[in-house]
Formats: sequence, C-alpha cells, structure tokens
Amino acid sequence: MPTPLLTGLVAAPFTPFLSDGRLNLELIPALCDHLLAHRVSAAFVCGSTGEGTSLTDAERRQVTAAWVHAARGRLKVVVHIGHLSASCARELAAHAQEVGADAISSCAPSFFPIQSIEQLVSVTAESAAGAPDLPFYFYHIPALTRMELSMVDYLHRAGPAIPSLRGVKFTHADFEEPLRLITYQNGHYEILGGREQMLLAALATGARGAIGSNFNFAAPLYHEIWSSFQNNDLPRARRLQGQAIELTLFFRRFGGLRAMKAVMAFLGLDCGPVRAPLKPLTLSEKKELEIGWQQLAQSTPTLSMPTE
Amino acid sequence: MPTPLLTGLVAAPFTPFLSDGRLNLELIPALCDHLLAHRVSAAFVCGSTGEGTSLTDAERRQVTAAWVHAARGRLKVVVHIGHLSASCARELAAHAQEVGADAISSCAPSFFPIQSIEQLVSVTAESAAGAPDLPFYFYHIPALTRMELSMVDYLHRAGPAIPSLRGVKFTHADFEEPLRLITYQNGHYEILGGREQMLLAALATGARGAIGSNFNFAAPLYHEIWSSFQNNDLPRARRLQGQAIELTLFFRRFGGLRAMKAVMAFLGLDCGPVRAPLKPLTLSEKKELEIGWQQLAQSTPTLSMPTE
Amino acid sequence: MPTPLLTGLVAAPFTPFLSDGRLNLELIPALCDHLLAHRVSAAFVCGSTGEGTSLTDAERRQVTAAWVHAARGRLKVVVHIGHLSASCARELAAHAQEVGADAISSCAPSFFPIQSIEQLVSVTAESAAGAPDLPFYFYHIPALTRMELSMVDYLHRAGPAIPSLRGVKFTHADFEEPLRLITYQNGHYEILGGREQMLLAALATGARGAIGSNFNFAAPLYHEIWSSFQNNDLPRARRLQGQAIELTLFFRRFGGLRAMKAVMAFLGLDCGPVRAPLKPLTLSEKKELEIGWQQLAQSTPTLSMPTE
Amino acid sequence: MPTPLLTGLVAAPFTPFLSDGRLNLELIPALCDHLLAHRVSAAFVCGSTGEGTSLTDAERRQVTAAWVHAARGRLKVVVHIGHLSASCARELAAHAQEVGADAISSCAPSFFPIQSIEQLVSVTAESAAGAPDLPFYFYHIPALTRMELSMVDYLHRAGPAIPSLRGVKFTHADFEEPLRLITYQNGHYEILGGREQMLLAALATGARGAIGSNFNFAAPLYHEIWSSFQNNDLPRARRLQGQAIELTLFFRRFGGLRAMKAVMAFLGLDCGPVRAPLKPLTLSEKKELEIGWQQLAQSTPTLSMPTE
Repeated sequence: MPTPLLTGLVAAPFTPFLSDGRLNLELIPALCDHLLAHRVSAAFVCGSTGEGTSLTDAERRQVTAAWVHAARGRLKVVVHIGHLSASCARELAAHAQEVGADAISSCAPSFFPIQSIEQLVSVTAESAAGAPDLPFYFYHIPALTRMELSMVDYLHRAGPAIPSLRGVKFTHADFEEPLRLITYQNGHYEILGGREQMLLAALATGARGAIGSNFNFAAPLYHEIWSSFQNNDLPRARRLQGQAIELTLFFRRFGGLRAMKAVMAFLGLDCGPVRAPLKPLTLSEKKELEIGWQQLAQSTPTLSMPTE
Repeated sequence: MPTPLLTGLVAAPFTPFLSDGRLNLELIPALCDHLLAHRVSAAFVCGSTGEGTSLTDAERRQVTAAWVHAARGRLKVVVHIGHLSASCARELAAHAQEVGADAISSCAPSFFPIQSIEQLVSVTAESAAGAPDLPFYFYHIPALTRMELSMVDYLHRAGPAIPSLRGVKFTHADFEEPLRLITYQNGHYEILGGREQMLLAALATGARGAIGSNFNFAAPLYHEIWSSFQNNDLPRARRLQGQAIELTLFFRRFGGLRAMKAVMAFLGLDCGPVRAPLKPLTLSEKKELEIGWQQLAQSTPTLSMPTE
Repeated sequence: MPTPLLTGLVAAPFTPFLSDGRLNLELIPALCDHLLAHRVSAAFVCGSTGEGTSLTDAERRQVTAAWVHAARGRLKVVVHIGHLSASCARELAAHAQEVGADAISSCAPSFFPIQSIEQLVSVTAESAAGAPDLPFYFYHIPALTRMELSMVDYLHRAGPAIPSLRGVKFTHADFEEPLRLITYQNGHYEILGGREQMLLAALATGARGAIGSNFNFAAPLYHEIWSSFQNNDLPRARRLQGQAIELTLFFRRFGGLRAMKAVMAFLGLDCGPVRAPLKPLTLSEKKELEIGWQQLAQSTPTLSMPTE
Repeated sequence: MPTPLLTGLVAAPFTPFLSDGRLNLELIPALCDHLLAHRVSAAFVCGSTGEGTSLTDAERRQVTAAWVHAARGRLKVVVHIGHLSASCARELAAHAQEVGADAISSCAPSFFPIQSIEQLVSVTAESAAGAPDLPFYFYHIPALTRMELSMVDYLHRAGPAIPSLRGVKFTHADFEEPLRLITYQNGHYEILGGREQMLLAALATGARGAIGSNFNFAAPLYHEIWSSFQNNDLPRARRLQGQAIELTLFFRRFGGLRAMKAVMAFLGLDCGPVRAPLKPLTLSEKKELEIGWQQLAQSTPTLSMPTE
C-alpha cells in the first residue's frame, strides 16, 4: 500500500470571476492562503464546484497554472481535466503535468451514455495518457454524469490499462461500493469521499480523505467531525455531522453551488457570480443568503473556529 | 426519549411455502426458534422478504397469527400491513392488533405515484388507524415503491396525525436523512437501518436497530460487526462488513430474494419456492447456489459462528 | 386476423363512491347508459381510472357484476384483474368469467420489479388462467407499473403460453412499438391506444381502438377526431386533437384523475370522491374546476356535441 | 407564418475520420453530393450523429467550413454549436455565421442539471447571440441531455428573448408536445421530427421536416413513407414505416451510431471509426454488420430505390 497522496480535507475551490464574468485570477493566491490557513491539504481545481466545464479550455489552463503557482508545493493541486472531447481532456492533462500540478482527475463524459466498463476505461485511458507522470483519480459523480457503472469493476479493468491510476473520488450516496473500493487489493487505491454531509459514514467505512466544496468555507467544522471520530467520541461526531447537514440544507434552499460560491464574499474572498447554465443569485437572494449565513455561523461556532 | 421497542437485529422472515405454493405454516415455530437461537430480537413478517404483497389477505392473517403464536413474547412480532388498498391495510392492522402482534409497519402503496407528504400521511394514517394500540413504523423502500419524499418531512407531518407513529424502517442508500431522523426531536423516533451491506455506516450514524433478510441465515456475522463497532475495533468491523457485502453480492448473482429464500433449506429450514412475480430457482441454479453457499460458509467462519 | 372485440372508443369508467367512501353501485346503470348514448363501445372497469387497486377484492367483484348487469350486452365489459397477488388476480378473473364479462385485462404487478419477459409471461399466465374463456389483454402502463420491457417480446413469448391472449392496451408515449405490435403476425393482436392526447398519432399508426378516461365525459370530441382522420381532413383532426390536449392540460393542473372524476358531477353523474392514496378535491378546488370546465366546454363545442 | 427554412428530410451527417482518428475533411464534398443525390434538403452538422461534442472546437470549425464550402447553397447547412461552455458555444455560433452557414442549433448542456426554463433560455440566448443573423433551432434530446422541461414553455419564454429563434428539433418519443408546438402561435415555429422510426406519427401530427441519421443511407425509404402519407395511402406508409423500424432495430443490435457510421463504407463513403466515448466496431462486428446490411437491403428495395 503506497503512501496516499491525498488525505484529510481536500477543497474543491470555486473559480473566481469578475462581475463581468471574466476570470479573476488575482484572487487565487488569497484563496490558496485561506485553504492553507484552514489546514486543507489539497485543491481539486476546475471540477464541478470550480465550474470547469463552463470554462473554455484556455481558461482552464490559466486557472490551473494560477493554482500551481500560488500553492508553491504547500498544498497539492489536483486538476480536473474531464471534457466531452477526449482529445481536449488529454491536452488539459498534458498541460497540468507541464505546469507542475500534483495529480489529475476526470469524470465520465456526460453526453453519450457510457454503457460498458470497456468504454469508460478506454475514454479515461485516452484522457489520462496526456499526463503519464501524474497520478490519476477517476471522479465518480452519477448525479451529474448519469454514469452508474461499478467502480470495483472499473478498478479491475482500469488498473492494468492506466498505469497512473491512483484512486477514485466517490461522490455518490452509497456505502457498499466504497467499502469494497477501500479494501480492494489491500487498500492499493485512494478512495476519497465526495459527500460532506456523509463524512462520518465515510470515515467509519475507512476513507482517509474527502473532497468537498464546503471545505472552502467550513473546514473547521469538518476537522472537528474528523477528530471527534478519531477520539471515538461518536455522539459529538454525530452532533457536528448534523450541523454539517444543516449547512447542506441551507445551501440547497438557495440552489446549492450558486449560493456556496456567493458565501465566499462574506469571508472577504468574493468569487463573483456563477456562469450559465447556473444562475447567479439576485440581489435579494444575496441579501437573504447573507442574513441566513450569519445566523448559521452564530449558531454553529465550529464553522469559524480558530484554526490551530 | 422512550425506550425503543426494536433494537439490535430484526429479521424479516421468508414466508414458508409448500412445494405446491400453499402456505407451510407448520414451519413457522422452527423458524422462530432459529431466530431466537441467533439472538434476533424481532421478526418483521409479511414484508418484502416475506412476499407479503404476493399473499392473499387471508394468508397474511394466517402467517401473522402463526408468528405471534410461535413467538410467545420471546421475540417481538412486527406485521407489515402495506397494501395498495388502504381499506385492506386497515383491516390487516386491526387483525394484527387483535391477535397480539407487537407493532405494525407499512410501505407506501406502489401503484399511484405518491406526490406529496400530505398524501403519504393521509394513506398511512388511514392504514395505521386499524391498530390504534400498536406502534407504527413507516417502511421506506424507494427501490420498490419509488416513493422518494423526505422522511424528515414525513415525521414532521405524520407525528401529530398518527399518534401511534414510532419510527421508520429506512431501506435506502443514503446517510444524510438517517442522521437527521435519528436526532429528530432528540431521538424521539426509532430509525432502523434496512440495508445490511451498510450496517457499519448505519451504526456510525447512530442506528440502534436494523431490519434485514440476511439475519435469517447469517445473524452471527452481523452480531460480530456490531460488537466490533462497539468495541471500537473498526478495522475488524470493516473486514466483517466486507464479508457481509460479499454475501450480498453472492445472492445478487442469483437474483437476490429468490436465492436467499432457497438458502434456508441448507440450514434444515426449507421455506419452499418464491411466488410470482418472482421466479423460483431451477434445479441447476439450486445446485450451483448450494455449492457457492458452502464455499462461502467455509471462508466466512463468522457466518455460522456458535451463538453465545 | 380475427374480428376485433374492442374497437372505437372504450371508456375506463370511474368507480362511483358515496361521499363516505363506500361504493355507489346504484349509479352504474346511469354511467352505462351515458356511455352508450355517447357511442362508447366498451367499458374497461376497475382499471387505474376506476381505482381498481384501491378497492377491496370484494368491491371489485361488486363493481364488475354491476357493470355486466347494467350493460346487458349493449356494450362490452372488460374487467381489469391486475393485483400484486397473482392468486387474487386469478380469482378476480374467475369471477369475471362467471358473471359474464366479455374480457379481462391485467397490468404488471407494481411492487417487485419485473426484470424479464419470462417473469411477466409467468405472472400474467397465472392470472389469466382464472378465466380461460375470456380474451385477455395485457395492460402496458409503465408510468404506473415501471415495467418497461418490450411488448413485442411479450407477444412473442406470451402468445404460445396464454391461449386467451388477445391484445395489449398500450399506455405509453412511444410509437415505435405500437406499429410493430399492430402489424405483428399480420395484425393478429388488438393493440389499443391508451393516451387520448395522442389519438391522432395512434390512428395514423393503425390503431383501431383506444381506451381512455376522457371518453367518460368528452367522447364527442374524440369521435370527431376519429372521423376527421377517416375523412382525410388532417388539419381538422389536428385542431381537434389540440383541443383534446388542452383538456389533458386542464385536468393535469388539478392533478389528473381526481379532477376528471369530479367533472362527472357537472354532467349529473356524481361519482363522489377519490380514495387514498389519491387526494379528493377541496371545496375551493371543486369550485375552480367547475368554472374552468364551463369555460372549456363553451370554447370547445365538440366536447358536448349532440350525439347522432 | 414565415416560409420554413427546413423542410423534408434533413440529414445529420457523420463526421468522417481517417483510420487514425483525425478528420477526413476531403470526404465531405462526396458526402454532400450523396445527400443532394438523395434529395436531402439540409445537413445538420456536428450534432450527436456528427459526434460534435467529441471534436475539439477547432475541428468543429473545420467541419463546418467544409460543409458550407461543399454545399455551395445547394443544400442548407445547420451547425450544431451545443457545448458545455456557453462561451465556446457562442464562439462556434459566430464562426458559423462568419463562414456562411444557414442556421445554428444547440442542445441543452448536459453536465449541470437544467432545472428551470429561465436557465435554459439564458444559456441558449447566450449561445445563440454569437450568430444574431442566423436562425436558431433548439435541439431537444432528453435521452442525451436529460433535460425534460416543456418545449412549449421554452418557446413562450425564449421567443421574446432570442430574436433569432426559429424552431425546435424534437428528438423525443412524445406526440403531445409536438402537436402543441406545431400549432403554437399559428405555426410560427418550425418543429422538426427527430425520430425516424416514428416519422409517420410525426407527419400525422403536422411536421413538415424531419432530421435524422438514417437519411444518410436510407433516404429513399423515408421519401416513400412521406409520399405514401401525402397520397393518403396509409397502409403502404405503415408497411414502409415498419421497414424503417426494422432498420432502427438492426442498428440498435450493433449499438446504434457506431454501426450506422460504419454502414457508410458499404456505400463507398467510408467515414472511418467513431471516437471515444463511443467504441469502434471490431473487425468481426463489421463483417457481421455487412452481411446483415446486405440482407436488409435486398429485402427492403425502397432502401436503395433509384432517386428521381
């Protein structure tokens, strides 16, 4: 079992835009420092939280380079290269390797239905081949890609076919497959939980890392869940996990991602609006969100707990 | 928080048939003793595992009476009364109360789509009203009923409307709702896990009871998962949970329920065939199942571990 | 190609209830005369429109007998016997034959998923066997049963296995299968359209009969669509079909079946409320429905066109 | 009602690749002549049949330019610009206008779920704005995009917001919406059928144009269906439509698109393999396909009927 590359909390950062919709690359160093200050171990950039598929490929390269440059080795940078076109994905992978990212990841293409493991292995192999030196993580997120094939079957076939395969980001409400994945070949692969609202179940199942959007603004809460779990204080872990679910429900009321991104402004890190096909918050939604957020922050001290 | 009625392992027994398809009521005392010998705390009869919906109402009454009679208070008897017709469900509830069952349960009717909590509360209230003295558990199983409304919303509305409401059997791959349900009103309701292959995640989430078909023939394995969890030996709990998943996968290869029922014969408790619309095993499938089962039993000592 | 039993408009009558929810059998003769006056050729009783699955089996028998008695051979009576329990379905079939119904029909049981044609043939064969002398129509309605297997494959396997198989009621938005079914074995089977809002497409495809709930209160409109089609006046047929769609949309706004049933009262044939799990209209909904209905009737003269 | 731009058979051409996977632009003039010889009125390029989303944007531009150049006004060229990134879609639209295409079209982005008409209007408006002078057709294909919002609602909201909106390509098995769309605002919009296997139902419903992949290799059959319909010879139209369905089933056996593309080689127009995530045919599949195709062509004379 190799030493895992990705452990603990991995944040999936928002891609910062100016109010006119163009990239705001200059905010990235501050976002990076913010994550470091909150003991986040890695950034998963240009993923679904980062609206990677809503960017042009040139923009994805700029965001990638900016994160690698800002990180300076202090946190790992994992670049999501998923694309409907495998050629484009491969080029994004090559670029990630070239600029010095630590790893790449790709979800399944979401247009033509993927109906066999063979197809999935083939398209991810083609994409990952652009960065032969970087560990590759498959990003399993059926809610967005509708690809629901077994990840155990994927590891079985992709293992020999993709030498750089290092693990799976598992963003799905199921704990049968994760346990099998975590123990597959004596724990050879890194299986990262992708649902913050079920972190406790993921930890019980054996996950050693988790990737999430909430870690951008609420890492302290999740660190506390984790340490409570490790200290065998399950009642406290459950209570805190309950608070994390409240957080999820709070954002869900406002449409999820679009609201989480807007919250960054309340922390002094204004990431700007979301792009189509997501819908930016209206002014009155923003106001309502801010009031709700402040109430939530007050009633959830762990949200903004001072970091060690 | 009242003392819970249902804790630990609750088995959902198979309904025993003769080879010609008629009820084999005479086997029920032996099935009951078998569960008791394996420290199963209650029997959930005429549920999906018991093919309740494939029985006539007269047969459901006979099975119910036979279990109550066999149990003699040594294990709890929960009667599933779910029916497409609320009138029939209500009559089944009344009968369960009359013969001395300990509780009733009902899933959502699976024909007309249930589109609002109001509808769900209304139809379950009508059903549960047949047994006003028995605790009522809603049986949430979207894979069969396709009803996916929020159980938190259900408790919120059904609590005041159904005085006998005591909890939810949650048979769904999700751990966001269960944590909310378990902590709802300071743990006022009993939330029972319904997926054996995720027992560990359910325990971490706070479940104090679980209902399953596997507990008919593999209770020792699940007791071991539970005690490992309680002893904070998570590595062992995960290893055993992995064995439980292998068990699930083994039966899935043979079509699930139809094969689990057939396994009872290997334990000397032949429950006969399944009824339409399920398809009984062919002779060669039965043979293959038996060989597979014996191999599995040898490689999984906890499956048949001697009981305390 | 045998002479078809079911042609033209076949109405699926509502089951009349008293305001306290009990059967109102005494209204059935008037409902029957109403259908006859509107040149409806047959009644499909105890189907989804008739809330058959929400009745007790005793009630289904009473409704069946009342319709056969009222019809006196003047219109055909097709009895829906579909039931989660194949034994119960078989007994309902036997009863239908005994009292002199013209045909039986069954949808797929909606609880355990039907995953193979073999299963579907087996369960429908068992049900249909209760009435060996009555033509059997399979009722395909995936929106309610979630069974989506190919009906061509079904005819292929059920043809030899169910001697009484006479056709399919096809209630699904697809016109690839219907054309294949209609021409299967040179038109050996009767394929009845089950979606009024697509009657024109069904006729173009070759359907010779259609079953619907709208024919209870709007048969004249559908007769006009049919005759326009036969007279090759497609522009008129489309205009009228557009009106039929407006009708569908009107009821959909009020939740469909529950509102259609309520409309009967405006025709002097009060069928009472719907049963759980459907939700009866509130008084204010009823009022709003009545106003809307009257407006619709005025703007759609064909709705209440005098019959020949 | 403006004169429609797209009528009759519109083919969605395959994008020709060399055996190494690079574009084979040189084949496009021959493909274009082939369509013209078969009285196809327009080419819908870079759509799903053209694997548009599997191409790089640069390649999409090359294919577009090659088609416009080959067509020389003899057939219309409609360019599919759908892209996960609205910016990229907009640039593709601008390019299509610049090189002289006749129209553009876009499906819904398939990654983030589109949950409101407002979102859909917003993202398509942004895309279409790149080509303000070209008619825009929304491409509705829920089987690939999972976007199932009402197209009537879309026209209602997009009409005022997208001045260039000209119609909808409706690729879905439903004939309730198409009839409403066709008659919407007295037929102001062009509604093109997108399912060849239901052409007859589409014609009955009032469609004046249809877009399909089959028109690449089987246009004569569909011309015959069309003329039979226009001559009121419905029995013949149905018989031919039945042959068209056989064609659909034939390709479905081989996985659909990947096999249809391979058939072009049998007509002397080798379009090469498909790209990931689709899977090219193996040699033995190709052989089997060829034998099957030849049998089909012999038993379906209209497939290769001489053109007028």
